[in-house]
This record gives sequence, C-alpha cells and structure tokens, in this order.
Amino acid sequence: MNELTIFSPATVANISCGFDVLGCCLDGIGDEMTIRKIPQKGIRISKITGMDLPLETENNVAGVAGLALLKKLKEDINFGFEIEIVKKIKPGSGIGSSAASAAGAVFAINHLLDKPFTELELIDFAREGERLACGFPITDNVAPALLGGFTLVKHDEPQKILKLPVLKDLFIVILHPQIEIKTSEARAILPIQVDLNLAVKQWANVGAFVHALHTQDELLFAASLHDYIVEPHRSKLIPGFEEIKDTALEQGALGCGISGSGPSIFSFCKGIQSAQNVKDKLEKIYRSKNIPFQIHISKINPVGIQIVESK
Amino acid sequence: MNELTIFSPATVANISCGFDVLGCCLDGIGDEMTIRKIPQKGIRISKITGMDLPLETENNVAGVAGLALLKKLKEDINFGFEIEIVKKIKPGSGIGSSAASAAGAVFAINHLLDKPFTELELIDFAREGERLACGFPITDNVAPALLGGFTLVKHDEPQKILKLPVLKDLFIVILHPQIEIKTSEARAILPIQVDLNLAVKQWANVGAFVHALHTQDELLFAASLHDYIVEPHRSKLIPGFEEIKDTALEQGALGCGISGSGPSIFSFCKGIQSAQNVKDKLEKIYRSKNIPFQIHISKINPVGIQIVESK
Repeated sequence: MNELTIFSPATVANISCGFDVLGCCLDGIGDEMTIRKIPQKGIRISKITGMDLPLETENNVAGVAGLALLKKLKEDINFGFEIEIVKKIKPGSGIGSSAASAAGAVFAINHLLDKPFTELELIDFAREGERLACGFPITDNVAPALLGGFTLVKHDEPQKILKLPVLKDLFIVILHPQIEIKTSEARAILPIQVDLNLAVKQWANVGAFVHALHTQDELLFAASLHDYIVEPHRSKLIPGFEEIKDTALEQGALGCGISGSGPSIFSFCKGIQSAQNVKDKLEKIYRSKNIPFQIHISKINPVGIQIVESK
Repeated sequence: MNELTIFSPATVANISCGFDVLGCCLDGIGDEMTIRKIPQKGIRISKITGMDLPLETENNVAGVAGLALLKKLKEDINFGFEIEIVKKIKPGSGIGSSAASAAGAVFAINHLLDKPFTELELIDFAREGERLACGFPITDNVAPALLGGFTLVKHDEPQKILKLPVLKDLFIVILHPQIEIKTSEARAILPIQVDLNLAVKQWANVGAFVHALHTQDELLFAASLHDYIVEPHRSKLIPGFEEIKDTALEQGALGCGISGSGPSIFSFCKGIQSAQNVKDKLEKIYRSKNIPFQIHISKINPVGIQIVESK
C-alpha cells in the first residue's frame, strides 16, 4: 500500500460536565486527507485546499504530528510521506480542526508503515500537533478522532484514555457561529480556583454521565449534562448562547453546551427527527442575528478516522 | 409481621476521588436492630446497648428518621414502633454509624407497614437522621446502607442516587484508630475553593472509577483511587496516615484512603489473601503507635440492610 485517502472527523471536546476530560467523535463533518509514500525522506505538505494554512512541515499540525511519529520509529526508512489536505473544518471553530489534521496524518502514516504503533501511541504523536496549534498537547479532541465514540481522558501520569459506550440513536446538532474566539482568550476567562461545592456537583455529573452511557439511560445522560464551572464564563463569548441553549432544551434536546472552547454549540438529540427539529429552530434564531453561521446534524461516529481509498 | 430484627451495615463514604458523591456498603460490620409494632403511636427508642446514645426519640437519629417516615404516611395508623439497638459501630468512627441507625429504622418500619415507600424515599427519611447527627442531611452513607454495593449521589435537584456495579472478589480492610475527629472539624479544614486543574483530575478519576466498575477493570479501579482535593487536608488529622497508606499500597492494596471524614482508613484489596496481608501489616504498624484501634476485613455488601429475623 502506497497511498491512503481518509476521512478525518470533527470532534466535540469538554461536553458540559467533562471539561478537559470528555470528548466525542462526529460523522459526516471532517477533513479529507491523502497521504502517500514518496522517495524523499521526512514529511511534505504538498497541498491544502479549503483553508489558508501553512505548508511548511514544522508549522503545520499534520506535519508536526507526522514528524513526532517518524522520530519514534525503531527502524530507518528510506522514503517519506506527502500529505494533501482538503480542509473542511474551519480552524477556530471549536470542533477539533487541528486535531483532525494531526490525528489523520499519524493514522494514515501508521497504516502505510504496517501499523508499528498502537492507538494510544498515535494519540501521543497527534498531541504534538495540538501543542503547535494552541500551546498545549491537549488530548480531548485527538482521542475521539482516533478512537471514535465517546472518550474520557484520565489525567494522572501516565495519562489513560478510556473509550466509553455510545448511547443508541444519538444525534448531535452543531451550530457554528462564524466568529473568532481565540483559545488563549477562552482559557484566560476561566478562574484558576473554583468552589468546592460546585466541583462536587460537577464530578458527580461526570460519574453519572459514564454510568448513563453504560446503562443506556438517556434521561440520566440528559440530567448529567450540566456545567457549573466553565460554561458560565465561556458562554459570555458566544452571542445568543443562552437563547440557543434554552431553545434546544425546549425542543427536546438532551443537552446543549459549548463545543471545545467555542464558538460552536452542540446539542445532543435522541433520534434524527428530534435533531431536525432542534436544527430548524436554532437556524431560525441565528438567522435573525446577522452573524454568519453553519449548522450540521451528525451521528456519533463510533470508529473515528475512516479509510476512503487505498492504493 | 409485627417484629423485625435486622443487620444494618457500616458504610464507607467519599472513596478517594468521590468526595461527597461515592459510597459503598460493608458486610459483617454493622448494628443489630429490632423494631416492633406497639399500641402506643409514634416512635419509642426502648433500649440501646453497646454505646451511650440518647433514648429520646427527637434526639436519636433512628427516632428522627422514623418520625420523618411516619409524617409522610398517607393513612393514619393506630399503632407505633419500638426500636432496640445493639450498637456495634462506634459514633465518630467514619464508617456511617448514624447512617446505619437511621437507615435501619426506616427500612424496618417500611417493611412492617408493607412497604408504602420506595428505597429512594427511605433514603430521604434517613437523611433526616444525618441532619440531626452532623447538621447536614448527607446522603453518602445512608444510600449505600439502604441500596448496598457502590452508590453515586448526583447532587443537582432533585438528587439522584445511582447504584453502581461491584468489582468481583473485592475486599476492604478498615482500620479504625480510636481517636475522635469531629465532623465539624473535618469540614472546617477543607478549602472553600480548589484549583481548577486539580478538580479536572479529580472528575476524570470519578468517571474512570465508574467505568472501571462497569468493565470489571481492577487496574483502572486502582488507578482512579486518588484524591487531590480532600485527603491532603484531612489526612493531617489522622496519626500515621501516610505510613498506613504507603504500606497498604506496597502490600498490593488497590487503593487506600480516608473513610468518610475519618479517622477510619479503608484499603481495597483483590481477594481475601491480599486483604489478610494488608490487615496483618497495618495491625503491626498501628500497634507500635500506642493508639487504640480496631481493624476489620469486609466484603462489599451487595444488598445493604438484611433481615435477620421476622415475627
């Protein structure tokens, strides 16, 4: 196999109660990437369409993640890799744009090398792309992009990534207001300290969220989707957030919150009809705001990155 | 049925990462209570052996919990209840002494009335006993006493109690140094605010703990048993805590921490032999300290309060 074309999905990190811990993988929203072996050693980003992003390997998240992988290879190889990206996830959207590129690159290179690395090792390489993108080697988006479904990042050293079960017939509506929120700004707005009482409520909800997935309890899943810590601060950066959230919940969404550090807003819905209702209403509200936006419906993607074609 | 004798178990609340949220039920450590119908209305505490505790109904946790139940009865009854307690769990031990009395009383009265109330309603009545004992209607001990196994208290209104699966072949060693730690002191030593970074680690571990129980993953269970928030403060109140914890973990315990607000220390062990090893070592250490103590091995009790005899 010399060439692989893959679909590298968008992801939602944080998920209300699970700031810096929970994530899930989307379906139908993502980048397309083609990675092929070339005689020249190292990594070359040959083409990016859709967005204006740097082509220099060291300044490109896919490039940096790929280099991190090559560095850990035990045997020397006498060839390299060329990466073409059809970028569909806008950087700064809050649905894991950099993670998709970084995770996609290492997934494909690993395949073309006959899989010398485990999924957990690939996550580590992909985190180097995140380090380039936002200054921190965050895991919450690259983990669900590579593993699919819902993931939980356990932060003690060594970090552990858990793959959680998926609730049946779950859909997600993603509203992406096309405004820019810098990750640094979204981080800076958070308090360094939080009330112990609120933290207790939050960790009870993380436990309840995990239990709800294992027991397929959609009411408990919905009841666990509260964020006492982060959303009260970050929601101020997103125009109309409260109205969007209230409307989504009124329309029957199981939960609604900020995707990643925003500005995208996710709503979980049971069944496609509910997701369609929520999408229609949110679209109507946001049209009145004179802010450009995109809105998508996605299933939860249980497998993560998918191979579209191999040669 | 006019009379019930029950075993009302001790419980461990908090469980490292799960401050104010997680709890589990013990086997073989608990009070014996006999509750019988009497012609006189209301609740009468007729006898307490083993400990010096108030007999006046309004000053006794079992009495207060029983009264809370009677108040919610839809139909008038022309009889009352008499409670005898053989108290084996020392108050202030940190293994749910007041919870055992309160939960036992409402469990037995509900049985003698042909079960007009659900388990969740019984938890609410028993919490009134906790309110008398420590000033707060805390749930973490009465929930596992009534439901058995591991429980998670979700704190949003309305409070939800989740029953979690039990890890196979799990034993718990309880070391009870016979010193007094007032719950008020153990509360006062806690910070009002905590670092967001630590809170994130803590809630990742609560999620990992729940996932570990569902997947029977004992390594993950062990890896989740860290407390970044409460133990660093409360452990200072327990002589030799660090030495005990280090020893328990060296001997193969899956985790070790403060039971409730202390002074009891729990160690989870896989299998009876491991529990016996841990018990032997901890016993040896504590003997050298000139502090009176008790030490027990218990299985996790999957059912909670048990009926010993009914007439």
